[in-house]
Amino acid sequence: MSSEAAAPSIRRLHTHEQVLAGIQQRILGSRLVAGDALPAERDLADSLGSSLSGIRKALRVLESLGLIRDEAGNWVLTGNSTTALANLLRLRMALAGFRLTDLVEVRVQLERSAATRAAEAATSQDLGRLRDILENMSEPGISTNRFNALDTEFHVALARASHNALAVELMQSLRDAVQAGMTTAFASITDWPGTAHRLHEEHDAVLDAIETGDGALAARRIGAHVTDFYRAAG
Amino acid sequence: MSSEAAAPSIRRLHTHEQVLAGIQQRILGSRLVAGDALPAERDLADSLGSSLSGIRKALRVLESLGLIRDEAGNWVLTGNSTTALANLLRLRMALAGFRLTDLVEVRVQLERSAATRAAEAATSQDLGRLRDILENMSEPGISTNRFNALDTEFHVALARASHNALAVELMQSLRDAVQAGMTTAFASITDWPGTAHRLHEEHDAVLDAIETGDGALAARRIGAHVTDFYRAAG
Repeated sequence: MSSEAAAPSIRRLHTHEQVLAGIQQRILGSRLVAGDALPAERDLADSLGSSLSGIRKALRVLESLGLIRDEAGNWVLTGNSTTALANLLRLRMALAGFRLTDLVEVRVQLERSAATRAAEAATSQDLGRLRDILENMSEPGISTNRFNALDTEFHVALARASHNALAVELMQSLRDAVQAGMTTAFASITDWPGTAHRLHEEHDAVLDAIETGDGALAARRIGAHVTDFYRAAG
Repeated sequence: MSSEAAAPSIRRLHTHEQVLAGIQQRILGSRLVAGDALPAERDLADSLGSSLSGIRKALRVLESLGLIRDEAGNWVLTGNSTTALANLLRLRMALAGFRLTDLVEVRVQLERSAATRAAEAATSQDLGRLRDILENMSEPGISTNRFNALDTEFHVALARASHNALAVELMQSLRDAVQAGMTTAFASITDWPGTAHRLHEEHDAVLDAIETGDGALAARRIGAHVTDFYRAAG
């Protein structure tokens, strides 16, 4: 078992992983931040002991993932793309065959944590944004697609209100990863106006608890809201 | 805000994202599982409306990420690599500048959830594995590096005992992503034998609670264990 767990660290690293590791070392050493240019390809090849063609291949992978971009001939670090993580998580979820119940469990934990922290940390701007989204969700005759989009916005805005950047990224990625499933679930709802009304009231009750600073109540309410939705969607 | 949140879905997708989306559609439609071959490059190009060179570039990205591999001239889906997710998460963490407190918060939630579920779901094999790891951690004169590796094993085995595959992957990825930080934290401990003894006892107390089926107690204990470690590591 020891040897199984140790395997990832002793197997040979791919070139792009070496480049990743090298870049990471430079970033963590506070030498590079988002917006900064990477060293020249030739310098990277020398310092990482790799061929120039290997480095170029690795840089193209990073570019394709949206982690660096070409700016007037220089590779510049981007710092705001969650797309790569969402794409990869989505594909991994499909390939690894995660069960929906696994995802719901992880989501409920992240949502509960976000609600608890938001009750302490949300600014009036955060709360105003959440109120705005809820107002849009209560439009009469709202379509399932628009409701679903606003629903995603609400849960991501809630994570944002917890002021935990990693939680925001994971929430957005998990949500993106199940977007197709969510669309199907929404489309299969028979009493849509009644469901939209109930879901809106549940969001509203979560936000009420956050506004009064009752994190434990907010956590219970959002946990039940997410669990019930998936149970109903079957 | 609506337009900001909607932006990711309306911007033009990169070719590799189109390929990802196309592959995902095939997998989700139960037409492809890990081990299956992708359609021929020419067929992918036709069905996704892309150039052959665009498809080849995208496939190389997927290969570099360890998601597909070349098998006798066919691209075959791999289904067991968490390396790509860990690499990407590590780089995103460095680039996005997630704070350590953000990471600790997310980890505590995942650990609590894993401990709660493990108390219900762990098999005798899961418990035996966790006991074995703890026994190895109590070796007299154990080095910080070996202890750190076993510590990772323990927390990943705990997630495994919860039988939530997504939680295992996130736990492993988050742990890989902070490996450098953990090594530094362990190296900075002054009273190492005393700390190793205390950490071992904390793990032991968590496992005791899981073995008696007390999920709430296990969750409290592992939450305190993780929070205290990072507080002490400062």
